[in-house]
Amino acid sequence: MSERIASAEIRSKVMSAEEAAQFVNNGDTVGMSGFTGAAYPKALPTAIANRAKEAHSKGDEYAINLLTGASTAPDCDGVLAEADAINYRMPYQSDPEMRGKINAGSMKYQDIHLSHSGLQVEQGFFGELDVAIVEVCRITEEGHLVPSSGVGNNVEYLESAHKIIIEVNSWQSLELEGMADIYRVPHLPNRTPIPINNVNDRIGETFIRIDTNKVVAVVETDSPDRNSPFKPFDETSKQIAGNFLDFLEGEVRAGRLTYDGYIMQSGVGNVPNAVMAGLLDSKFENIKAYTEVVQDGMLDLIDAGKMTQASATSFALSPEYAEKMNREASTYRKSLVLRPLQISNSPEVIRRMGLIASNGMIEADIYGNVNSTHVAGTRIMNGIGGSGDFTRNAFVSSFISPSVAKGDAISAIVPFASHIDHTEHDAMVVITEYGYADLRGLSPRERAPKMISVAHPDYRPLLEEYFERAQQNKHQHTPHNLRDALSFHINLDETGSMKGNA
Amino acid sequence: MSERIASAEIRSKVMSAEEAAQFVNNGDTVGMSGFTGAAYPKALPTAIANRAKEAHSKGDEYAINLLTGASTAPDCDGVLAEADAINYRMPYQSDPEMRGKINAGSMKYQDIHLSHSGLQVEQGFFGELDVAIVEVCRITEEGHLVPSSGVGNNVEYLESAHKIIIEVNSWQSLELEGMADIYRVPHLPNRTPIPINNVNDRIGETFIRIDTNKVVAVVETDSPDRNSPFKPFDETSKQIAGNFLDFLEGEVRAGRLTYDGYIMQSGVGNVPNAVMAGLLDSKFENIKAYTEVVQDGMLDLIDAGKMTQASATSFALSPEYAEKMNREASTYRKSLVLRPLQISNSPEVIRRMGLIASNGMIEADIYGNVNSTHVAGTRIMNGIGGSGDFTRNAFVSSFISPSVAKGDAISAIVPFASHIDHTEHDAMVVITEYGYADLRGLSPRERAPKMISVAHPDYRPLLEEYFERAQQNKHQHTPHNLRDALSFHINLDETGSMKGNA
Repeated sequence: MSERIASAEIRSKVMSAEEAAQFVNNGDTVGMSGFTGAAYPKALPTAIANRAKEAHSKGDEYAINLLTGASTAPDCDGVLAEADAINYRMPYQSDPEMRGKINAGSMKYQDIHLSHSGLQVEQGFFGELDVAIVEVCRITEEGHLVPSSGVGNNVEYLESAHKIIIEVNSWQSLELEGMADIYRVPHLPNRTPIPINNVNDRIGETFIRIDTNKVVAVVETDSPDRNSPFKPFDETSKQIAGNFLDFLEGEVRAGRLTYDGYIMQSGVGNVPNAVMAGLLDSKFENIKAYTEVVQDGMLDLIDAGKMTQASATSFALSPEYAEKMNREASTYRKSLVLRPLQISNSPEVIRRMGLIASNGMIEADIYGNVNSTHVAGTRIMNGIGGSGDFTRNAFVSSFISPSVAKGDAISAIVPFASHIDHTEHDAMVVITEYGYADLRGLSPRERAPKMISVAHPDYRPLLEEYFERAQQNKHQHTPHNLRDALSFHINLDETGSMKGNA
Repeated sequence: MSERIASAEIRSKVMSAEEAAQFVNNGDTVGMSGFTGAAYPKALPTAIANRAKEAHSKGDEYAINLLTGASTAPDCDGVLAEADAINYRMPYQSDPEMRGKINAGSMKYQDIHLSHSGLQVEQGFFGELDVAIVEVCRITEEGHLVPSSGVGNNVEYLESAHKIIIEVNSWQSLELEGMADIYRVPHLPNRTPIPINNVNDRIGETFIRIDTNKVVAVVETDSPDRNSPFKPFDETSKQIAGNFLDFLEGEVRAGRLTYDGYIMQSGVGNVPNAVMAGLLDSKFENIKAYTEVVQDGMLDLIDAGKMTQASATSFALSPEYAEKMNREASTYRKSLVLRPLQISNSPEVIRRMGLIASNGMIEADIYGNVNSTHVAGTRIMNGIGGSGDFTRNAFVSSFISPSVAKGDAISAIVPFASHIDHTEHDAMVVITEYGYADLRGLSPRERAPKMISVAHPDYRPLLEEYFERAQQNKHQHTPHNLRDALSFHINLDETGSMKGNA
């Protein structure tokens, strides 16, 4: 296996995961690779979890602070949460076990814009970084690291950490080499423009340079990335995809977009994937993506010749499509580039691209404030991820969601958002299976009827009634009835349905 | 006077404001210069207001949609609001008469990130721009416009509008010529990096090129800019300034800042001005400002040799300091540069600079969500302005505010923000006269005690009691008691005090 470790110096550090885990101490701050179920270390997390369990069984303390690119997988975030091995976690997670610990109050979590996460580590906001644990595809003779299926914050973590542990995963195709474009924005006060003018511009190297003296351990693995398969498209997803296309067609009619060269950004999930399937049969050609992750739908668009260029920081492919990528990486490499998260999500480059952003949400209020993170204002789901990076700097920012969830117990349109991640200043278009609400150029009171029109029919009378009552307030810029503003959420907490009659 | 109009072609269009106002029709969308009380047109607004009054007295409709750089002054926003001459207004205002109309529901207002405002006009979100009305210092022989005391969105408005009306204001010093640096980001899909690496880099021309065929009228004026004088510093402002300096000193101790070359951004107002006065006696040298407006305190810092470079889009000087600027513009020009708003507030350049942002607020909640715009969630004060542009992209983002307002009827720290303009993902440090709450690296529950510690002592027990009750919620990531979350604001509406006992 170790032909993937060309550097003799580094090869001499090969050991078991259990041995390597001895370099990770209680209280350490650890930066790991991993972005969605791709490119996370496959062996160390379990080894660290076992250390934690052993320590706890003796009554000793053992917990680390864990920083990653974004979410990981059950055999990383899941096992570590289950072992109570994490004190503090940033910038994103989506693991059910971990979410449970966070909402129970036994684990600390900070939900940070992804474009800020590596930057703030560099800037020293998280103190010393003790260890970086990074999965790679191979190690070159010079000791350079060839990224596997994602880049995330690896550059920042490898540079900031005192110790480096490398996992070399032979499951990852060697043909991934060349996919990554590693460019380092100079540190303050010498930052300079990021010279990307087109989605696929390559401005760096295909590998990450490290200080090989910091490498304390290398672990060999042969384990697949683990993303969930996408669900088959249901009727609601198809309707949302249709409404998204209607919105795009409207932009074309208004002269703000052409059928040639639309640049997309898309959040992760089943509905965004359905939107991409919708594009397959559309008039749009030469589609490009400047986005965070490569999803199944993007590979379909590339295969169909509809998408010509894509930039992301990681894959988020279903098991089937991950296998396909491993087989055809040398072909996909021609149209795909993987960048450090600080660049895939850079406000600078995003604004330059003039892309159309499309992200999921939990709820939006009648004035266009969007909650992406908290159910009923208190309970974290995943996190803001990169949605703020793209929303804030896109040409047009859209949010897409089914109009109801949990049967119809939860409405995606509410009187007053119970948490706000994207403000009324940022959300431009809100899309459900009932249509799209275009909020651009509208004062708050003009937005409310548009938002109510895309709510589920069961909730429209309740929202209209609220808006009527709100307008009895003597302040009419953003009218609210503060006594009833959170009534949908109080109903949900108390009766199990926002309707209050469950 | 007309030696300020070197172009013969344009000189032939000189007329009275009343005549020029005939080019502004009912229903027109009008882009005006003006950013704070500087550089707004001095004659046309009154002439347009008079047209509106005349039409209304005959039972005719007359209202325009007004776009500017930011707020203007009583003889612009004030007279137009008073005459009911405005249907829709963006992106910012701070006029009492106008605010009254907006909150009464008789005028539509959209509160937009300033860095988005010109961009979205270019992108066609506001339809056709009928007229641009722009104050200038002088017009060159070639018909180029030399900006007066601000640039704002003038470049975008002059380019987009079908008709151009120019006001040439001889009150403005001719020595302002050379202060402006006019650079045009190419339109999509050809946007390129903005090549500014240092605060004072000059990358453009000192004048705005226009299509002189679009000029329909030129009006000569001799009227001062009208910013309010700053208030004398009170004890609270001095304490806030002291706490801001403590925070800066903490950054120096942590190795994240040096005494040489700190780059500031500062919101507009009395408290920020007090902070600048505090810097006069500090150890910080070679201070730079990459900010939105030039305030009195910055001129004092320049005079004292403490500030070496400053970039903004406009002046916001008291009458006394505006006179001083007019006398000494040729000296100040060496260290000051005025840029188009799209560049002064560019996320790209702001993030590159690594500046420390400091903006005012109305309230922040115990988890660090900040409301900059709405009293009790419904009543607009001014608007978000550029605070989001800077907060979202700064090295460190801070918010400064006295802990109470209206005597002690309003607390700046509340259980649940009644409107959110800056999310928990963005606000890093909150400063009042009682200290600074550094929220970096903290989970929501860890932030609450820090936030409560900077609240007014009268409100601390109420906030602690709320936080206790909130923690009885079974969801502990961001605990809330939804029934009581807005209690401070309901109290304010119903009793006149957030304490509920007024």
